[in-house]
Amino acid sequence: MITFSEALSYIEHAIKGIHYPKQPQKLYEPIAYLLLLKGKKIRPALTLLSCNLFKQTIDEAINIALAWEIFHNFTLMHDDVMDNADIRRGQPSVHKKWDENTAILSGDAMLILAYKYLAKSPVHNQKELLDLFSTTAAEICEGQEYDMQFENRLDVKEEEYLNMIRLKTAVMLGASLKSGAIIGGAMEKDKNLLYDFGLNLGIAFQIQDDILDVYGDPSVFGKKIGGDILCNKKTYLLVNALNTKDEKEKKELLFWLQTGNNQKEKKILEVTSLYDRLLLKEKAHEKMEYYYRKSIRKLNKVNVPVEKKIVLMNLAKELMNRNS
Amino acid sequence: MITFSEALSYIEHAIKGIHYPKQPQKLYEPIAYLLLLKGKKIRPALTLLSCNLFKQTIDEAINIALAWEIFHNFTLMHDDVMDNADIRRGQPSVHKKWDENTAILSGDAMLILAYKYLAKSPVHNQKELLDLFSTTAAEICEGQEYDMQFENRLDVKEEEYLNMIRLKTAVMLGASLKSGAIIGGAMEKDKNLLYDFGLNLGIAFQIQDDILDVYGDPSVFGKKIGGDILCNKKTYLLVNALNTKDEKEKKELLFWLQTGNNQKEKKILEVTSLYDRLLLKEKAHEKMEYYYRKSIRKLNKVNVPVEKKIVLMNLAKELMNRNS
Repeated sequence: MITFSEALSYIEHAIKGIHYPKQPQKLYEPIAYLLLLKGKKIRPALTLLSCNLFKQTIDEAINIALAWEIFHNFTLMHDDVMDNADIRRGQPSVHKKWDENTAILSGDAMLILAYKYLAKSPVHNQKELLDLFSTTAAEICEGQEYDMQFENRLDVKEEEYLNMIRLKTAVMLGASLKSGAIIGGAMEKDKNLLYDFGLNLGIAFQIQDDILDVYGDPSVFGKKIGGDILCNKKTYLLVNALNTKDEKEKKELLFWLQTGNNQKEKKILEVTSLYDRLLLKEKAHEKMEYYYRKSIRKLNKVNVPVEKKIVLMNLAKELMNRNS
Repeated sequence: MITFSEALSYIEHAIKGIHYPKQPQKLYEPIAYLLLLKGKKIRPALTLLSCNLFKQTIDEAINIALAWEIFHNFTLMHDDVMDNADIRRGQPSVHKKWDENTAILSGDAMLILAYKYLAKSPVHNQKELLDLFSTTAAEICEGQEYDMQFENRLDVKEEEYLNMIRLKTAVMLGASLKSGAIIGGAMEKDKNLLYDFGLNLGIAFQIQDDILDVYGDPSVFGKKIGGDILCNKKTYLLVNALNTKDEKEKKELLFWLQTGNNQKEKKILEVTSLYDRLLLKEKAHEKMEYYYRKSIRKLNKVNVPVEKKIVLMNLAKELMNRNS
């Protein structure tokens, strides 16, 4: 069995080995730039670890693993344009370092590159991988669309929010795991259990992200605390706060949502204190735990010896206890 | 053998039958909108006609034919954002009718949809189709990148221009034809001859486009005459005009390139007259004829009875004699 860090090294090595055409430079440079920024690389790692549950050699899974990582970074490149986000992983985002057109076109080339890596997978797995990949990719676009629509809404329901993060974030974790199981030659039932493990873990992961933005430790959290609050991002916390039945609290929240960022520190402080009063940190933790436990139940049911599942089990646990 | 118009009806019927998820509407509506605008649909027709050279039933080719048409329209959706083009086929382009983010994200979903249709092709052809499709798609992005770079250059060489249109326009015609031959079960040699037929026809087609923009009949040409001149678009004519050794003519051309569009009619008139003096219409026609003849030679070599090739032969001829 390989460890998580062995999986990461394998992936990082493979990313460094990606061959780009020399010309036109401006099309391919941004792809290499984004892929080489420090990222978690959870998705390709899940693919390799999932394959390893069923097969000792994971070499055949590296190409679909890379396809997920390339696809994930493609979504970041385009999302940063759409969301006007200037910083990505502590560095200038592609549309900032180059320009918008470059980010659009390099992103397109990146999506195509992901399919090129998919096509390097064993031929007898290709039809299944292709269907899984395209279905998942389309769902992620749907998730981004809902996320953008939520920007202009104050009446997002909790279940709408959960559906959005399922599409935007969670399905890719599920599909990364399932694709590894496909390459590993798993039974249909186990493939789907691993998908569900990833799906539920992904939802828990995103709620965790929402919590960390407000309650994370500033000394270890990669981004500035309160970033979501400052840009009125619809998070699990904000959606629930907006749905409070307490009219006074809601009025105060709406006041802060309309406040420009000339009172940044105060806005973060006041909204956080409102979340505190509404016990939303606790509510979010509970929800996160719910999906986390559900994910573990799915993993437990996968029909392989329990000792083989320890790496994935520990990875899930670490993701839930992370502080960045 | 099916005729060109039978191929078109088949494609139009299939496009109308595309199933889009109901939600989120804003993601899928622009895709249907663009696909239903009146377009030539040459690429999918080439796929069906090419398949029909080798096989009586063309049903198995319809999905990859649709994939090309969807992909082609995806490039239009994103190119219109990058080129700031507000009109497409006489109607508002997607980023104008909706907004830029919608055009970016719906375009992404459209590229994924193209791969979904590719994946409906017969399994034993998929690996070959997938490689051809992704290679071609990446080349088209490269072509768009060069096209954008040319906007800021006055020293584009004729061969650079020809390489750009090869990538941006011609490879997709070649690949559309080749994919039909793949489904039809053609020999390697014939697949490649059909690719080369399309490639050379595509280059001729684009040079023809450049000519029509200046010398087309305004009563039948779909767009306004002189559009390329007004936006200083690097066409075969402009690239050659800029490379003239006649310093006086070049100076005049540079003057008109720097002239804003407050003298639209005069600019079109003067640049056209300059093209006339430099005999560029004739030069372009000659070049177009060169690639057209080359394309026909490739088609002639395809190892099927000549009567089967008449439809493609006539289609090529019509494309060269078109006036819109």
